[in-house]
Amino acid sequence: MTERGNISRRQFVASAISAATVSSLPAHSVFAEVASVRTAARQTSPATLTDARGWMDQGIENLAKSPHAKLRDIPVRAVTITGGFWSQRREINVSKSIPTMHDLLEANGRMNNFRRLVGKSAAAQSGPVFSDSDVYKWTEAVGFVLQSGDRPALRASADKLIDEVVAVQEPSGYLNTYYQDDRKSLRMLPQTQTTGHELYNIGHMLQGAIAYYRGTGDRKLLDAGIRFVDDFLIPNYGPAPKKPVVSGHPEIEMGLIELYRITGDKRQLDLAGYILHGDERIGLPERRTIYMFSGTPFTARTKLEGHAVRAMYACCGATDYYMETGDPAYLQTLKTLWNDMTTTKMYVTGGVGSRSDGEAFGDAYELPNFRAYGESCAAIGNMMWNWRMLAVTGEAKFTDVIERALYNGINSGMSLDGTLYCYRNPLAFDPSTGDKIRNPWYDVTCCPPNLERTFGSLPGYFYNTSADGIYVHLYDNSELNWHLENGVGLKVTQKTNYPWDGGVEIMVAPAETSEFTFYLRIPGWADHAQVAVNAKGLTGVTPGEYLPIRRRWSPGDVIQLKLEVVPQVIEANPRVADDTGRVAIQRGPLIYCLEEIDQPAGTSLSDVAVNPGPRAAEQFQTEFKSDLLDGMVVLHHTGAVYERGASEKALYSRYGRESLRTRKIPLTFIPYYAWANRQATSMQVWNLLLRT
Amino acid sequence: MTERGNISRRQFVASAISAATVSSLPAHSVFAEVASVRTAARQTSPATLTDARGWMDQGIENLAKSPHAKLRDIPVRAVTITGGFWSQRREINVSKSIPTMHDLLEANGRMNNFRRLVGKSAAAQSGPVFSDSDVYKWTEAVGFVLQSGDRPALRASADKLIDEVVAVQEPSGYLNTYYQDDRKSLRMLPQTQTTGHELYNIGHMLQGAIAYYRGTGDRKLLDAGIRFVDDFLIPNYGPAPKKPVVSGHPEIEMGLIELYRITGDKRQLDLAGYILHGDERIGLPERRTIYMFSGTPFTARTKLEGHAVRAMYACCGATDYYMETGDPAYLQTLKTLWNDMTTTKMYVTGGVGSRSDGEAFGDAYELPNFRAYGESCAAIGNMMWNWRMLAVTGEAKFTDVIERALYNGINSGMSLDGTLYCYRNPLAFDPSTGDKIRNPWYDVTCCPPNLERTFGSLPGYFYNTSADGIYVHLYDNSELNWHLENGVGLKVTQKTNYPWDGGVEIMVAPAETSEFTFYLRIPGWADHAQVAVNAKGLTGVTPGEYLPIRRRWSPGDVIQLKLEVVPQVIEANPRVADDTGRVAIQRGPLIYCLEEIDQPAGTSLSDVAVNPGPRAAEQFQTEFKSDLLDGMVVLHHTGAVYERGASEKALYSRYGRESLRTRKIPLTFIPYYAWANRQATSMQVWNLLLRT
Repeated sequence: MTERGNISRRQFVASAISAATVSSLPAHSVFAEVASVRTAARQTSPATLTDARGWMDQGIENLAKSPHAKLRDIPVRAVTITGGFWSQRREINVSKSIPTMHDLLEANGRMNNFRRLVGKSAAAQSGPVFSDSDVYKWTEAVGFVLQSGDRPALRASADKLIDEVVAVQEPSGYLNTYYQDDRKSLRMLPQTQTTGHELYNIGHMLQGAIAYYRGTGDRKLLDAGIRFVDDFLIPNYGPAPKKPVVSGHPEIEMGLIELYRITGDKRQLDLAGYILHGDERIGLPERRTIYMFSGTPFTARTKLEGHAVRAMYACCGATDYYMETGDPAYLQTLKTLWNDMTTTKMYVTGGVGSRSDGEAFGDAYELPNFRAYGESCAAIGNMMWNWRMLAVTGEAKFTDVIERALYNGINSGMSLDGTLYCYRNPLAFDPSTGDKIRNPWYDVTCCPPNLERTFGSLPGYFYNTSADGIYVHLYDNSELNWHLENGVGLKVTQKTNYPWDGGVEIMVAPAETSEFTFYLRIPGWADHAQVAVNAKGLTGVTPGEYLPIRRRWSPGDVIQLKLEVVPQVIEANPRVADDTGRVAIQRGPLIYCLEEIDQPAGTSLSDVAVNPGPRAAEQFQTEFKSDLLDGMVVLHHTGAVYERGASEKALYSRYGRESLRTRKIPLTFIPYYAWANRQATSMQVWNLLLRT
Repeated sequence: MTERGNISRRQFVASAISAATVSSLPAHSVFAEVASVRTAARQTSPATLTDARGWMDQGIENLAKSPHAKLRDIPVRAVTITGGFWSQRREINVSKSIPTMHDLLEANGRMNNFRRLVGKSAAAQSGPVFSDSDVYKWTEAVGFVLQSGDRPALRASADKLIDEVVAVQEPSGYLNTYYQDDRKSLRMLPQTQTTGHELYNIGHMLQGAIAYYRGTGDRKLLDAGIRFVDDFLIPNYGPAPKKPVVSGHPEIEMGLIELYRITGDKRQLDLAGYILHGDERIGLPERRTIYMFSGTPFTARTKLEGHAVRAMYACCGATDYYMETGDPAYLQTLKTLWNDMTTTKMYVTGGVGSRSDGEAFGDAYELPNFRAYGESCAAIGNMMWNWRMLAVTGEAKFTDVIERALYNGINSGMSLDGTLYCYRNPLAFDPSTGDKIRNPWYDVTCCPPNLERTFGSLPGYFYNTSADGIYVHLYDNSELNWHLENGVGLKVTQKTNYPWDGGVEIMVAPAETSEFTFYLRIPGWADHAQVAVNAKGLTGVTPGEYLPIRRRWSPGDVIQLKLEVVPQVIEANPRVADDTGRVAIQRGPLIYCLEEIDQPAGTSLSDVAVNPGPRAAEQFQTEFKSDLLDGMVVLHHTGAVYERGASEKALYSRYGRESLRTRKIPLTFIPYYAWANRQATSMQVWNLLLRT
């Protein structure tokens, strides 16, 4: 499959050149002229404005002019995933997930909410206060897909949808299908802002509009977003004497800053900063500002707590704010929060937010497995935040988190057939509880389109550029066709069977022989990694760091990367009560799990134990099964099972009184992301460790 | 201290004789004549009715005529606790807890809710929908205290309060301070019954009224309860064509059945049965009937789930219903639920309801420690249910649960000084979370007066009679002055230092030499227990059973019981993920814990491990510390501490890569019930097991 569709390579070159041409303009000036014209004329015909065509060159984030970003995003369209691990997932996302979600948004009244307001539907308002955001996230997913190439049917659906959205925008710029009719008087009241998701919806609208703009050059939705921000929001809301703003559910911060990166209108950045700081005129109880992860100064926070998605989105917005302003208090807080998360509050799958109660971060080391919440959106937020921290620092520890979340806690969120979604992503499961873990739709359906936009944007996560070269973050068969920051064209081709094995051949082809640094990611899990350039081995290869390969690169140069992809036995910090006496199995970036269906009949996962032996890797045999769950490496292991099942034992008994006799049992592990794609069966990631 | 106060032994003898006299009347006829008179005249002057004075002979439950109860309660006043473990707790309950709770009920507007309705207060309604129940539970606590002897000041307070309560009863019999004014139209609507606690309040009113009646003979509140039931409830609510009832929060069932046991009015029993069965005319979603543990047939339930206190109270009511009806479906369901609880859902402290989310039972084996909810009320409900199951069966396994809950998960609920209460009773605690675990008052203040009524009623839990003799359940210094069911007077005196050591001397003094069975409880934890009568050893002593000692007993006979009270190391079923690789320490009926304050400075409980060694008991040295926390046996143990603290370790690491080096550390354990009585400090019940 080709990811690029109808857009020719020539067009890419043209767009790259145009980007180089405009790079001498002042910061954030792509729209500078546009903005000034629009201020006078936007009520009449914003669509007639000149377009700088910078849209084709913008990545997931447009960091081209961000003064405190070390790395810069490349456009999604610059990378073509040509086959391999992510290829099928992405194709199904486009051919199945996004179209069926469109139908479900229709069937569940999300679009009628818009039509109702222009007299085209008699249906009552339906869905929760944040229903509009479902539509915007879907639009964002389409936008990212179109960045990889035209899909006429998808584009037609989205164009129609956008027409229906913008049709309901009021002359004031206000746009929200919930706060209409008798709810109109509640608009933007402090209480509504706190719980009503008005600005959350607009944040997603801006993200959707920007992705769509970057995919198509179409500004219709983007202009509607600009009208909301510039006409309705900025003139009326902000520091005194304007009316106060509280984020409620952070999201608008990211949207405003990305908008600023297009328009260069600093009022948008300043509004984001004001929101991140919180406005004390809105007196909120502490439990509320904890839950919302907003409303008090972001830079006063010392730990992750409250609603996990809110916290992650707030951290994303704050990192964006840092990249534009360089305010050191933000960077310090972000580092504190990141350390708090990665040393005490993140699942081994990259999921975060362990508590169902409040969909919240738990206390330090509170990481239950059966009851794990691990909302798909929170894992996505974690990846988005680490993407931004990576841009700030160029440090590979952030990429390790991205990879952990992407391959495990995010990838688990969508069924292999692309039509069912996890809201929760637990690390152990017992079907007898009656939980149904994968569903086509949720009343709160934030996760499905969030997963769709993430998979849509995936090519954009493979590389970054820096002033001195290029970074490679993710490994899969792919072609990069882009340029260095100095304008020299660069193609990079990856050939690999990653993550199933660890060999990656990387062909580096600059348009002309050129000296630059190729920053090659060595994953944190990769012991004994080996790197060669043109068959000559390199030293200094360190897991969890980028190997900087600085040299004069010429077309035909090849990097050979050999990562030791072998089973590893992982233990948790002893403070993680739920993992005490247990181990997880990891191979490459993939966390593995047991599903009862793969074990000998009658085996209860509660009764099995893993025997890591003196050399753990040798205790697990790998087998690639092409016919199993779209193809995967399974792990075979001779573990142990308690002869008397745990279910027969007393709840409490005298230690050592009953001997724990075990017998050997063959166990089969599958990658965690693929769990719950067959019939309902028990699952667990953390398995008892055999006491020897 | 004397438990009995001003009521002379002569009065007890007189009351015992009167009970024997009336025992030839038809079942539940104590009030039979009363009831028939009342039916005609109760609107005018129910207080003038004849009183059979049976009130003095009624125990926690009046099982005198319950056809399917194997055991019968003795009156609270028949047992005097003369000193020892429970003596100080009970004295503080009376002198501190109950009076300060009275003031807090006042200060928080609970009584003004009543006064408002008769124009004696201008305060607005305050507190949640179930605020009246706080007042009734407090009244019940006072009622139980007065059953142990007059306390004039307490009685005066309660009499005044009862006057204020009954003053607001409407002519219809309705009484509820919340559903007044504009809420009047909501009364007894299905939705209100589901969430509004109307009948829950009345259930507690009946229990309070009955306890007060049994303490004083005063029927004022009891008659108000009868008016609600007989005038308002029964004529209007029940099976079609009456209006439907749903329990919402079970409690009314127990109240109705205990009322029936006094009045003999079978309509009250039948209404309880109807409510336990549920009325399908109230169509409720399944999640609601799960949460409420009511609204669907009790006998169709197969597991404990939903709100733990609701479930426990439902089980209490269902057991009461079984004792009156003998419906085998109830007994079968009760046994199924009991097995479910004790093999998968009960903390080692006897606490139940592990989830804060919905204050609910978790899934099987879901027993987190830090996040344990373990509401005090749920542990009390557990004890109350087991008390009823014990009455049905005479089986000691139920008494084991009573003792476990009473000494641990209930006793922990009240501070040693009697003024602070736990709502949650976690099994591990980290003060850095900011949780304040003991408080004088809660907005939902169900637990404090519930603890007070429980400690007030404690003497009533020491003994039961059966057709062939007497059962002793609890051991503490005490005097029983009662009679066998055949009318022969019986005094039993216990002398012991239980639970600090296991020797109990029991003097059995029947009024005349008499053959009967003395059922001596051998706790389930008691290995190697020895029993002698008049210094002659007995055989057949089995832990977790009653030792039936059938002989001709004469005044001066002495039973010597020697229980091996030694430290025991307890492990949980491996399915309890939170306890894997951990052990708890128990000594006698007491669960022990570590508080950081007792350990060497700088010790983090997360880093310590217990070393049970080959003979666990020898690894723990006992010391009675009279000056510590009102006096207690502490346990000293040489454990281990990880040289590199868990807080410094990565969240996830390669198994076995880091050696877990430990050094020895002296650890000091205190009984769990006494935790959090000093400054805020870490606590844990389940400690890491040293890997050797």
